[in-house]
Amino acid sequence: MKSTQSYIKENKDKFLNELLEILRIPSISADPAYEEDTKKMAEAVKEHLVKAGCQKAEVHETKGHPIVYGEYLIDKKLPTVLVYGHYDVQPADPVDLWDSPPFEPVIKKTKNHPKGAIFARGSCDDKGQVFMHIKAFEAMKAAGELLCNVKFMIEGEEEVGSPNLGPFCKKNKKMLACDVILISDTSIIANDIPSVTVGLRGLSYVEVEVVGPNKDLHSGVYGGAVGNPINILADMIASLKDKKGRITIPGFYDDVIKLSKKERDAQNAAPFDLEAYKKELKVKDTQGEEGYSVIEQTSSRPTLDVNGIWGGYIGEGAKTVLPSKAYAKISMRLVPNQSHEKITELFKNHFESIAPGAVKVTVKPHHGGAPYITPTTTPEYLAAAAAMKDGFGKEPIPVRGGGSIPIVALFEEVLGVKSVLMGFGLDSDDIHSPNEHYGVFNFNKGIETIPYFYKHYAAMKA
Amino acid sequence: MKSTQSYIKENKDKFLNELLEILRIPSISADPAYEEDTKKMAEAVKEHLVKAGCQKAEVHETKGHPIVYGEYLIDKKLPTVLVYGHYDVQPADPVDLWDSPPFEPVIKKTKNHPKGAIFARGSCDDKGQVFMHIKAFEAMKAAGELLCNVKFMIEGEEEVGSPNLGPFCKKNKKMLACDVILISDTSIIANDIPSVTVGLRGLSYVEVEVVGPNKDLHSGVYGGAVGNPINILADMIASLKDKKGRITIPGFYDDVIKLSKKERDAQNAAPFDLEAYKKELKVKDTQGEEGYSVIEQTSSRPTLDVNGIWGGYIGEGAKTVLPSKAYAKISMRLVPNQSHEKITELFKNHFESIAPGAVKVTVKPHHGGAPYITPTTTPEYLAAAAAMKDGFGKEPIPVRGGGSIPIVALFEEVLGVKSVLMGFGLDSDDIHSPNEHYGVFNFNKGIETIPYFYKHYAAMKA
Repeated sequence: MKSTQSYIKENKDKFLNELLEILRIPSISADPAYEEDTKKMAEAVKEHLVKAGCQKAEVHETKGHPIVYGEYLIDKKLPTVLVYGHYDVQPADPVDLWDSPPFEPVIKKTKNHPKGAIFARGSCDDKGQVFMHIKAFEAMKAAGELLCNVKFMIEGEEEVGSPNLGPFCKKNKKMLACDVILISDTSIIANDIPSVTVGLRGLSYVEVEVVGPNKDLHSGVYGGAVGNPINILADMIASLKDKKGRITIPGFYDDVIKLSKKERDAQNAAPFDLEAYKKELKVKDTQGEEGYSVIEQTSSRPTLDVNGIWGGYIGEGAKTVLPSKAYAKISMRLVPNQSHEKITELFKNHFESIAPGAVKVTVKPHHGGAPYITPTTTPEYLAAAAAMKDGFGKEPIPVRGGGSIPIVALFEEVLGVKSVLMGFGLDSDDIHSPNEHYGVFNFNKGIETIPYFYKHYAAMKA
Repeated sequence: MKSTQSYIKENKDKFLNELLEILRIPSISADPAYEEDTKKMAEAVKEHLVKAGCQKAEVHETKGHPIVYGEYLIDKKLPTVLVYGHYDVQPADPVDLWDSPPFEPVIKKTKNHPKGAIFARGSCDDKGQVFMHIKAFEAMKAAGELLCNVKFMIEGEEEVGSPNLGPFCKKNKKMLACDVILISDTSIIANDIPSVTVGLRGLSYVEVEVVGPNKDLHSGVYGGAVGNPINILADMIASLKDKKGRITIPGFYDDVIKLSKKERDAQNAAPFDLEAYKKELKVKDTQGEEGYSVIEQTSSRPTLDVNGIWGGYIGEGAKTVLPSKAYAKISMRLVPNQSHEKITELFKNHFESIAPGAVKVTVKPHHGGAPYITPTTTPEYLAAAAAMKDGFGKEPIPVRGGGSIPIVALFEEVLGVKSVLMGFGLDSDDIHSPNEHYGVFNFNKGIETIPYFYKHYAAMKA
């Protein structure tokens, strides 16, 4: 695909500058304060689809943030690729930990990105990776080398659990009909170790409220006799794991598929340096479920993490208060073949059942998603692997990711097609953290590699 | 003291209105944002001392908030009463739980205050109770019935541990020389059950920081292998108490004086209705150390309460973050003869020692104070008991309070005199809580009762 690649080479700087522009829009889906910005971002995506050459591009309103759809259809006989991604981003806080403003992109060199990385919220997750697909499409079309029909579905609620994407897919099955869904919202092992994600963890996210006395009390007058909601919440959270780091919720592991030694060995064969890992995070030890490697703990084993906790006096100085309420946000990462609905139910029943009489406990489900696993023998995977080899000059390694893209399992169920997780970020890119960044190398390499997928996929389906 | 009492009766409304005025000044000592207001409050106290008839009234600057001193000396041969109190108040948050603005006093009837209560931060703790002493002095002087020399020492840092009062007392021993220290910063059992506080708990207040990875992480990518500071903080807090509600810090109970059955029976003889207590707080059960009554748990037994906790994402919606840091404010109430310095040290060593390798833990001491206990056979106590009987027409019950006035032990050490804790609030007055209030009955009854203390104390010392 000579002329596609040369178009890409010639337009490198233009592509990068266009990306920097959309990174300035704070499309934070979790925070109602940014509603206008998410709308603005949806419009920007639509305009880029039109500029890139789509025959049709529309902003579809939902109960939440809009979904952008675009398409370029050449020939019914050719396979159709549906590109999925999201234009919304995680909240930027704690903002004071950013070295530069989260929505004013700057390019700086890093250890893992000697050629420079784009620092901005959403640079890697997922605006930067979505934009690679729009630019790859623009290049293939401009070069007259587009070998598949293309559809784009870019949503604005991935970071809040895609509540409206499922209904949208069900309602628009015809419009979204395709042979494969192509997604870049994951990572590679390293810039010289390409990989393709073949598994994702599911997610169950809940918020818990612990209510003790009907008002904040003086800790001297009442302390010792009145149950303290914070102490009790701490007890309850601590009781959710045993000494071996196993989750104690009855039935939690019932549906987990036990991996064979062969499968575990294959996973653990992926390059991994524990000392470098600890050094990078500045921790003396890791801490996970006994009997599993870090790779397994972060990909093929379920987890339970408190994502946030608050209660009582958290201001300057000291206040001797026995608070009325305490709260926590708790999420569990799930693996095949756990059901997030079932796990959320198990958590709710268990957590409410262990509450002592001194408090009232309520568990509010936030959102969830099913885990996903894809075999490495499908034409979808083989096309992705071949494309990565063309792009990086190296066979990619199939890996299971620890994160969740809940919607992927739903695509298979509703649209009946497999998804390919061909991401180009690095785990060290600080997505969801302060100073999120995305390598300029990775951005360019993604744009170069995507057309090879179309080529190989078209050939396999021919 | 006929004419003193009639002066009080005649000036009831004036006294109340003067109190409402000073309740409008938000003299929050913990929050630097209110520095100007604490200064303004100190000046207001000084002016009231002058108006009440002090020969001398001064605002003494300290490293923190100023201390107000005033005096009226009649005759070296007469005993000298030093009135101690504080003009600073607790922070008002959570402000949204107040039914009326915390610094705009309103008078409303309540179950325990059918004649009405003054709702405002500081109404009971301690502006309202300090003001009773200034008004009682004004009345005695106006009536020519003042039988003791009087000194006032009103500080502005009681709610933050009185860091500068100790040095001030040491530096001004001569000026502060007295026979007894009279304090109204405690409560009575009920408006028809007078009591005098004969014990106070000590306090050790610390803040803990738990640091895991060097930045917030994606809970999917790292969750399961990287120690979560919130989960670990919860584990550590939970481990501080055993199943019987006993504190597990090695050596914590070593210095606690075991009470005799007789002493315990005497304490438990005080009127107490557990069902009413639980109903008032809207809790199904209390939760305290096994083998002790609620009265004991809240007065003669030490405690450990988390006063505040925070970490991770606490905003709207969901953020799948594995946070870098988590924090808690933790305080322990102490009993005779525990040393707050020793307990703080024991806590710090223990808490830091149980930190797993996945985190770094730091314990920062906030402030502390020694517990206090006074016999019921001293002239100081007997004068207070006689005064309460004159005021309420009923023998008062000696009770141990659960709160702490750290400075009381220091007074005995530095000034070599006993303190009398003749407070007039109710435990249900919501001090340190939203909607703090103080009964109009209690305010008036305090002003009426205080002159009887001077009368009986002068007679006993004659």
